[in-house]
Amino acid sequence: MTKQMIKIPETPFPDDSLTLHTDKYQINMVEAYWRDGIHERKAVFEVYFRKIPFQNGYAIFAGLERVIRYLHAFRFSDSDLAFLREDGYAEDYLEYLASLRFTGTVLSMKEGELVFANEPIMRVEATLAEAQLIETAILNIVNYQTLIATKASRIKQVVGQETTMEFGTRRAQELDAAIWGTRAAYLAGFDATSNMRAGKIFGIPTVGTHAHSLVQAYRDEYTAFRKYAESHKDCVFLVDTYDTLRSGVPTAIQVAKEFGDRIDFKGIRLDSGDLAYLSKEARKMLDSAGFEHAKIYASNDLDEQTIMNLKTQGARIDVWGVGTKLITAYDQPALGAVYKLISIEDENGHMADTIKISSNPEKISTPGRKRVFRIINKVSRKSEGDYIALEHEEPQSQDCLKMFHPVHTYIAKFVTSFEARELHHMIFEKGELVYQLPALQDIQAFVKENLEVLWEEYKRTLNPAEYPVNLSQQCWDNKMKLIEEVQLKVKQRMQA
Amino acid sequence: MTKQMIKIPETPFPDDSLTLHTDKYQINMVEAYWRDGIHERKAVFEVYFRKIPFQNGYAIFAGLERVIRYLHAFRFSDSDLAFLREDGYAEDYLEYLASLRFTGTVLSMKEGELVFANEPIMRVEATLAEAQLIETAILNIVNYQTLIATKASRIKQVVGQETTMEFGTRRAQELDAAIWGTRAAYLAGFDATSNMRAGKIFGIPTVGTHAHSLVQAYRDEYTAFRKYAESHKDCVFLVDTYDTLRSGVPTAIQVAKEFGDRIDFKGIRLDSGDLAYLSKEARKMLDSAGFEHAKIYASNDLDEQTIMNLKTQGARIDVWGVGTKLITAYDQPALGAVYKLISIEDENGHMADTIKISSNPEKISTPGRKRVFRIINKVSRKSEGDYIALEHEEPQSQDCLKMFHPVHTYIAKFVTSFEARELHHMIFEKGELVYQLPALQDIQAFVKENLEVLWEEYKRTLNPAEYPVNLSQQCWDNKMKLIEEVQLKVKQRMQA
Repeated sequence: MTKQMIKIPETPFPDDSLTLHTDKYQINMVEAYWRDGIHERKAVFEVYFRKIPFQNGYAIFAGLERVIRYLHAFRFSDSDLAFLREDGYAEDYLEYLASLRFTGTVLSMKEGELVFANEPIMRVEATLAEAQLIETAILNIVNYQTLIATKASRIKQVVGQETTMEFGTRRAQELDAAIWGTRAAYLAGFDATSNMRAGKIFGIPTVGTHAHSLVQAYRDEYTAFRKYAESHKDCVFLVDTYDTLRSGVPTAIQVAKEFGDRIDFKGIRLDSGDLAYLSKEARKMLDSAGFEHAKIYASNDLDEQTIMNLKTQGARIDVWGVGTKLITAYDQPALGAVYKLISIEDENGHMADTIKISSNPEKISTPGRKRVFRIINKVSRKSEGDYIALEHEEPQSQDCLKMFHPVHTYIAKFVTSFEARELHHMIFEKGELVYQLPALQDIQAFVKENLEVLWEEYKRTLNPAEYPVNLSQQCWDNKMKLIEEVQLKVKQRMQA
Repeated sequence: MTKQMIKIPETPFPDDSLTLHTDKYQINMVEAYWRDGIHERKAVFEVYFRKIPFQNGYAIFAGLERVIRYLHAFRFSDSDLAFLREDGYAEDYLEYLASLRFTGTVLSMKEGELVFANEPIMRVEATLAEAQLIETAILNIVNYQTLIATKASRIKQVVGQETTMEFGTRRAQELDAAIWGTRAAYLAGFDATSNMRAGKIFGIPTVGTHAHSLVQAYRDEYTAFRKYAESHKDCVFLVDTYDTLRSGVPTAIQVAKEFGDRIDFKGIRLDSGDLAYLSKEARKMLDSAGFEHAKIYASNDLDEQTIMNLKTQGARIDVWGVGTKLITAYDQPALGAVYKLISIEDENGHMADTIKISSNPEKISTPGRKRVFRIINKVSRKSEGDYIALEHEEPQSQDCLKMFHPVHTYIAKFVTSFEARELHHMIFEKGELVYQLPALQDIQAFVKENLEVLWEEYKRTLNPAEYPVNLSQQCWDNKMKLIEEVQLKVKQRMQA
């Protein structure tokens, strides 16, 4: 058996494209549209989720950069078309697919925007065919990255100003999740990652010193720490390979003393055991040895709950390494964002709003092209809530805004002296990219600014207050009208 | 603003390699080894997990194909090295890294092998430097794919022979997870996927008809179903856009009657509501219309629990579409496989076994190069358990095998008349790939064979019996010896 017996490339298809990263039903629906001649009718879809993950008070939108790259490169490659041919699609349809590029318009919130349930994050206006084919990949990207950015922000709410590092690559759900997950964590406020490829691709600061295997390789902590110190200025010694307090910490102190100014003894890392107890004891040992500035790094299945508990117990941890629980969003590993058709061109060339009904009231979509405004009180500089209006409405120019609860509609408030900050930005205009991708560091700063506009009540990790997301009266009336129309159709169907 | 303002490629680095997909501490440890001149000492690492996920009775190993591709392509690219240079690594060390290829030996279980807690799945024997650098990516790959294969197998245990389809792309944790996750599901027994790119890359059968948006696009189920039927022979109509029983099912029946033999009316799909009730009612309606052969497809947050419940309630579902809960392994989204140094060449060129101690007994590693055997009773053709022996041992040639519990060592059984099937296979031999990658369909068949060797008691999804995984006496004695040596070292450290 020799090397040529396996295919060498990472994927067997050098022209592998993400355009085929879609569900088969999209390809089949588009064929129906195309054969019927309605494939170029203008369709408007919106991306939104119905519930904020982790019962958090807000979510942080992430994923736009990858969506932009995906749409920009959208094109069935030769091997994509060859596969579809083999799968039985007819030549005339394949010719049409081969000609497709993304020529639509996309409006979106910026990455790092705070987003709430039932708000359109992104709006795609394109031909029915194009808009349909891109659904799956957009959701795949937005769902995961938004989930992780939100989880990371929860963790930061508990950690506060202390340094927080993403350590989850080995437990991530395959390679893309490691890379894009750590980017989402960083934009939401994390300080660094252990993943070198993420450092290279996104410019995220990278961190890491050594693992247990260094100690095992030298079969002795003293030798291992010395060898590490001989080749690295910055030293964080991992002290739990054999016995943290009886062997690891005393050895770290001994080596730090022996090397003196030749190294920068940044501290020690605890990766197992009772982190509250061990950190307090280690702190005493470091302090009494004169290493008051040495920091204690901790890792081991940390998340916002365990960090809060450790803090309550007075753990002396300075730097937090968070892995599995963040990168997989362990307590809720999926966000359920959907992509719903809200308006479509009819046979006369007019746009007609559409609705999806469900026996589950939360699953009823809100028809029509909408704009989302954050209503910021000019005095407090805090947000009063978000306001979803139909496209032609101009809440910015109103003096007084009535905001009413979208379920309990009799609950309402009137807001005056406000700014209405529009959350959607033009990304693609008729296929052309018109949006400058911000630097990742700027997105991180944008998240911080956004969180400052939010009252503290919405930022608690447990039982946060419900942030108001209200529909305008016209938007509400439009929804009710469409529901009635559908009910009438069902009734006619039953009588038929 | 124009197109050239953003970077066009999928990644800004056309020579992006996965070699940098590693934790920074690996790069730093290897630098310490290299500067100390021990980087070429032979090191042996094993991959294993400590707990079977989902409290299942077995796990299914997956990930080997991608690991092979990764190791085969292992090489720092120019942009990798440029990043490391910018990050502060010295030129002489970079030259060394640039020269690295994977030259080691890998033994592994085959994909589709049943694997249990604390068994070495894979053994890497390489230079200390190489073996260290590849840890992170191997774990990232093996952890996710094994997790999903195991989850898929649990679902298949409940579904039985009925068709089961993977529908999770939009909820997967980024793109790789969708692709490799659906491959893992397929090898564990799923029948098809909705992801077209997975169909192209892996040859998995693809399925899908239409979504709610087709109905919304035509604003009317009757027109939508007709238009679909005009362009597709195989029809499965999604019936829950407006009202399943009052509108969706009757319309599907009407269109199926109108088209007669011109289509193959495969059935209807339910995607919301009470699937037990709706499927029973829909079945009656289909049957009384003469469509006894039309199948009922169901999807909507299904997993082994909901499927078992639906079956208990007599739901009339023929085909199961499983998404979120499978592709994210929702109830346990991470597997904790580790990669531990178990033996290393010492200064005299001898291999010395090593151990990692922990205050948590399950976290103590088992030192030494080991072989894993499945002990199959020649009469029942069922497995008596797995037997882990040191490398030189030959349990195959023993007449009687003593198997004792690795925790409660006083519990033992003697096995006679057995075959000892060795589970490790040579994959790379001194850097050369010597393993022929099997076809995915063959891996699926291999899983089925493997499950036949397992008693039913281990296959229950709830409270399965504990499958015996036992150490040989020599392996056990070796572990105890190493523990004592470490304890002695800690004692000496305390007295120093």
